[in-house]
Amino acid sequence: MIKVAVNGYGTIGKRVADAVFAQKDMELIGVSKTRPSSEALVANIKGYPLYIADISKKEAFSNAGIEVAGTVEEMIAACDVVVDATPGGIGAKNKELYQKYGKKAIWEGGEAHELAGFSFNSSCNYKDALNRQFTRVVSCNTTGLCRIIQAINAEYGVKKVRATMVRRGADPGDPKRGPVDAIVLNPVTIPSHHGPDLQTVLPEIDIVTTALVVPTTFMHMHIIQMDLMKNASVERVLEIIKNHPRMGLVKKGLGITSTAELKEYASDLGRPRSDLWESCIFEESVSATDNGELYLFQAIHQEADVVVETVDAIRAMIGEVCDAETSIKITNESLGFSPI
Amino acid sequence: MIKVAVNGYGTIGKRVADAVFAQKDMELIGVSKTRPSSEALVANIKGYPLYIADISKKEAFSNAGIEVAGTVEEMIAACDVVVDATPGGIGAKNKELYQKYGKKAIWEGGEAHELAGFSFNSSCNYKDALNRQFTRVVSCNTTGLCRIIQAINAEYGVKKVRATMVRRGADPGDPKRGPVDAIVLNPVTIPSHHGPDLQTVLPEIDIVTTALVVPTTFMHMHIIQMDLMKNASVERVLEIIKNHPRMGLVKKGLGITSTAELKEYASDLGRPRSDLWESCIFEESVSATDNGELYLFQAIHQEADVVVETVDAIRAMIGEVCDAETSIKITNESLGFSPI
Amino acid sequence: MIKVAVNGYGTIGKRVADAVFAQKDMELIGVSKTRPSSEALVANIKGYPLYIADISKKEAFSNAGIEVAGTVEEMIAACDVVVDATPGGIGAKNKELYQKYGKKAIWEGGEAHELAGFSFNSSCNYKDALNRQFTRVVSCNTTGLCRIIQAINAEYGVKKVRATMVRRGADPGDPKRGPVDAIVLNPVTIPSHHGPDLQTVLPEIDIVTTALVVPTTFMHMHIIQMDLMKNASVERVLEIIKNHPRMGLVKKGLGITSTAELKEYASDLGRPRSDLWESCIFEESVSATDNGELYLFQAIHQEADVVVETVDAIRAMIGEVCDAETSIKITNESLGFSPI
Amino acid sequence: MIKVAVNGYGTIGKRVADAVFAQKDMELIGVSKTRPSSEALVANIKGYPLYIADISKKEAFSNAGIEVAGTVEEMIAACDVVVDATPGGIGAKNKELYQKYGKKAIWEGGEAHELAGFSFNSSCNYKDALNRQFTRVVSCNTTGLCRIIQAINAEYGVKKVRATMVRRGADPGDPKRGPVDAIVLNPVTIPSHHGPDLQTVLPEIDIVTTALVVPTTFMHMHIIQMDLMKNASVERVLEIIKNHPRMGLVKKGLGITSTAELKEYASDLGRPRSDLWESCIFEESVSATDNGELYLFQAIHQEADVVVETVDAIRAMIGEVCDAETSIKITNESLGFSPI
Repeated sequence: MIKVAVNGYGTIGKRVADAVFAQKDMELIGVSKTRPSSEALVANIKGYPLYIADISKKEAFSNAGIEVAGTVEEMIAACDVVVDATPGGIGAKNKELYQKYGKKAIWEGGEAHELAGFSFNSSCNYKDALNRQFTRVVSCNTTGLCRIIQAINAEYGVKKVRATMVRRGADPGDPKRGPVDAIVLNPVTIPSHHGPDLQTVLPEIDIVTTALVVPTTFMHMHIIQMDLMKNASVERVLEIIKNHPRMGLVKKGLGITSTAELKEYASDLGRPRSDLWESCIFEESVSATDNGELYLFQAIHQEADVVVETVDAIRAMIGEVCDAETSIKITNESLGFSPI
Repeated sequence: MIKVAVNGYGTIGKRVADAVFAQKDMELIGVSKTRPSSEALVANIKGYPLYIADISKKEAFSNAGIEVAGTVEEMIAACDVVVDATPGGIGAKNKELYQKYGKKAIWEGGEAHELAGFSFNSSCNYKDALNRQFTRVVSCNTTGLCRIIQAINAEYGVKKVRATMVRRGADPGDPKRGPVDAIVLNPVTIPSHHGPDLQTVLPEIDIVTTALVVPTTFMHMHIIQMDLMKNASVERVLEIIKNHPRMGLVKKGLGITSTAELKEYASDLGRPRSDLWESCIFEESVSATDNGELYLFQAIHQEADVVVETVDAIRAMIGEVCDAETSIKITNESLGFSPI
Repeated sequence: MIKVAVNGYGTIGKRVADAVFAQKDMELIGVSKTRPSSEALVANIKGYPLYIADISKKEAFSNAGIEVAGTVEEMIAACDVVVDATPGGIGAKNKELYQKYGKKAIWEGGEAHELAGFSFNSSCNYKDALNRQFTRVVSCNTTGLCRIIQAINAEYGVKKVRATMVRRGADPGDPKRGPVDAIVLNPVTIPSHHGPDLQTVLPEIDIVTTALVVPTTFMHMHIIQMDLMKNASVERVLEIIKNHPRMGLVKKGLGITSTAELKEYASDLGRPRSDLWESCIFEESVSATDNGELYLFQAIHQEADVVVETVDAIRAMIGEVCDAETSIKITNESLGFSPI
Repeated sequence: MIKVAVNGYGTIGKRVADAVFAQKDMELIGVSKTRPSSEALVANIKGYPLYIADISKKEAFSNAGIEVAGTVEEMIAACDVVVDATPGGIGAKNKELYQKYGKKAIWEGGEAHELAGFSFNSSCNYKDALNRQFTRVVSCNTTGLCRIIQAINAEYGVKKVRATMVRRGADPGDPKRGPVDAIVLNPVTIPSHHGPDLQTVLPEIDIVTTALVVPTTFMHMHIIQMDLMKNASVERVLEIIKNHPRMGLVKKGLGITSTAELKEYASDLGRPRSDLWESCIFEESVSATDNGELYLFQAIHQEADVVVETVDAIRAMIGEVCDAETSIKITNESLGFSPI
């Protein structure tokens, strides 16, 4: 059993904790929180030992009816691997602690590639993560790009990718961030950082990305165009997507044309938290031209897609499961997950 | 086993179907849909027999990979009780069909009181529904008002209620309705229809309501003020709410101050579809003055609160469970539901 | 000519500057900005001398093509009255500067009553502001409450006011603040601070207020209920509103039922920046009961209503115009403003 | 004086009416409305004769205090050119009426190219419109594409254009349309119709477009990529834009990175209705690669950009001003318009 600690039990951390808890080869030894909150209470309800960085706040937790198991340092000392899901920028400061105890650590995409020295996507470079001490799972958007580009590149060869990310403004549970009524260029310069970020995983890909933020709460929408080495057939592309363990097709004829309807579908299917771990590619959008271009829309659930990748990263770093296929299969099956 | 048909498998209908399916004394004999859709596909996946009004559309369903069990008329013929969850106004047209087969029928709050001749809320008038042929479960907003007003009236006597409903603009899965950036007076006149609607259940209550629509997708927010016969104590009011099987307290100290955080909490708790069947009263908002006034905020999940009431209504109309307490207990337990 | 400086040329400050510029008895001697921005550029285009707090940033302004006239301290030294429209909390820190130069100063509603020791609304207490050194113009919401409550109190006597403020989340030009999809209780406790704030102007009024924030950008919506000393007639209330120089009626029959349509109407009328300086009371909403209650909806333009009050406050503090009616008339006419 | 009638005094029609009214060589002889509304009242206030299709509704207008000058048919009979700004699809039905009276007519982009047989953009094909009876001014999005593509094509030669339109969900004054919280693929298929629509004006351009709808109210955002015949220089592209009479640069250093800040800037500049008649290209976004690619973001004000084009179309169809440059100059100057 791999002993896993989740440092930062927020939007990503709580999902990683649930996913780790569901794995037969892993044990969730604890999660951490800095302030009393409904999430901390739910950790108690689920029976996840709750650790806090500043033990002097223990009373504040008690007052809110929340039980604390100990300090974050104790949690780190007891684990084999820590998943750092603290807010972007905080994770870097925690590296010293993980080194002090000689622990393996995974950071999420809010941290820089350089912090871990290695960036991960199950379908692209699982083997390169074997037995590493430090790994970074790339962000939700980059994960979505990695999956489709790697798969298409393997089949047709990709000469150039141009992608636009239309990003949600705030997570569903966030009552503060905006915008309320604006399309925000983020960044206003072209290209955005997503292209170079993809290249930390797939260095050979020529890619230009642009990114905007809009007032929605669930899922980013990607508009992807690729110049291929040879002409693609739509049928074959759809087949590639169908056969991929982390991509799904939003089938035509079901009336789903928006992120709202897609989330509702996940909810109807009984997915926990309505999570879509898979990239959701709109079947009707997949188009190929006779001069080697491929176009498609894909929706990416910002809270979910990296969760399954993180579970695979844990397994790779421990090194007992040596290939991506096996790990992905274990991860998916333990969650009862097969793509839409 | 009570044979239940759900005519209209949309936002409310699909939740009623799931709730009926979970009851030990009920059998879900079928659901209906007019067009192929992701919801129809999910009915298939869940194993709910799917009926359609216009059998000539069967091929369209087949083309979308969806299996059809027969016609709505066949479904009605086979049931003991039909829950009509078709869009507002359509339900009235179905009455003739239900009468033709001599079936018991329940409509939701989008239909007029007169259609059924009786309006229902479990906590207020369960016994009056016993053995009825037709019943209307009042709307989500009215249900939310019924619960708290009945409970406070029983304890203190209510002289006057003033309530404002700040309503969500569109359901989460709806990509069409707005508004995008407007506060809409709906209606612009005062009072709104919610007061008279409450009086179909609690005729003795003096109430004035106002209603607005805002650009959100989940939960209405009620601002409620009551003039009482005697002064209330906040502690006792909180106790009444805690002890109520369909009201819950959003406890202070957990950082929940918005509909977004409340929905996230439901999601974290693992509620199916993140549904909040209970009225969610904000503990910190409950205020009592020394001249007999009571104030509070409550959030009402527009997709969910009537679902449990509908299940009780079915039971009442069959008449084997003769008191509200027992039915509510069965309904709640079969859903694994205890209020937050 | 009253020499006026506007310290803080943002949402409120730029409107105050334009309004001061339009007055025949006032001279706008300068405005201030901390960073280069489109607003600073517009100050240049309009010919308003632009001052900056930190003169070392002059080059940054030059690089953006913006001319700087000098330091904020120089601007203060040159004025008779300074209007402090800096962000909430900053204004308090500026008091010392204004005292150093012995200048009269006006703060906006983001600052505490105690800072100025006097809170102002033209229609309520103009005379009390005569010749004062320091005055605070109450916030947009409080200004809206002051106008209608004072007017109704004068006619009928007000026993009790209950008001809910449904507030916009972000200003139209703000791409950062939210919420995106939430109704936020702000505060979650009842009452909100608006009641006590009203009492800084109208101390005798018994009032309970509640406040929420929703994802819109223009105008707050107030739901107001008053218990009166005697029964009101709707006709007389409408007349009072029509005759008030700072309240207007959204007439029935024109199809305006939302903040969106109201803003569009202001825009169609050619109002600068689509500003609604008046409280906008919905004619159809005004309702009176035979037990002395009055109900109404009013929309308050958060960027505009305090602007005209601020101009009056300047005039009162200089003391040459001794009554509210005359000042209001001058202010309104110089802006070409008569209420809708 | 060219006698112009505006049939349909809504979002576009009212702006065209104001723009026509401002031209020295045109006379606005009337506008039309089907129902009493605030817009109809404003037509009265501005002194624009108001005509209605169904004269039996005259009393309804009177009741709302709105004066009616006569029937739409009388208005058509009296004009030289009618601008049809009725809702999409209605305009086609009006063609017969315009033919009956032998009048010249302009439709907006909501109607099909075939209805007029000619599609117009001032900068692209003014001369082809000379003396025509029927003309269609292409939609706001297509107008925005026409301007930049024609200009870049003239300088560098355009091999291929790929453009994504992120569209606003509802106009600012619309309280009904959504979405509230969704990114909607509209259409879900690729390409969208905007490419073929551009080709009605610029038939030689190879273009693929995609389109989405988001919950905002002002301006569409275009992400444009072009493959050019030769490498572009950013400086030269910026110069081309600066020199264009209908394109403006959102300059860097002013802090404008969103549609919200851009609209605020228009408002600060005192533009009527905050209208941005020009395409707004973000200076910092303009990027050129050494393999002949050009990238940029442009914001398009959906209510405004076609207005100035429509005025030019009127002039072209009358035929007294024979070149685009002269007409554009007259139109711009009469509005006091020079691009940002």
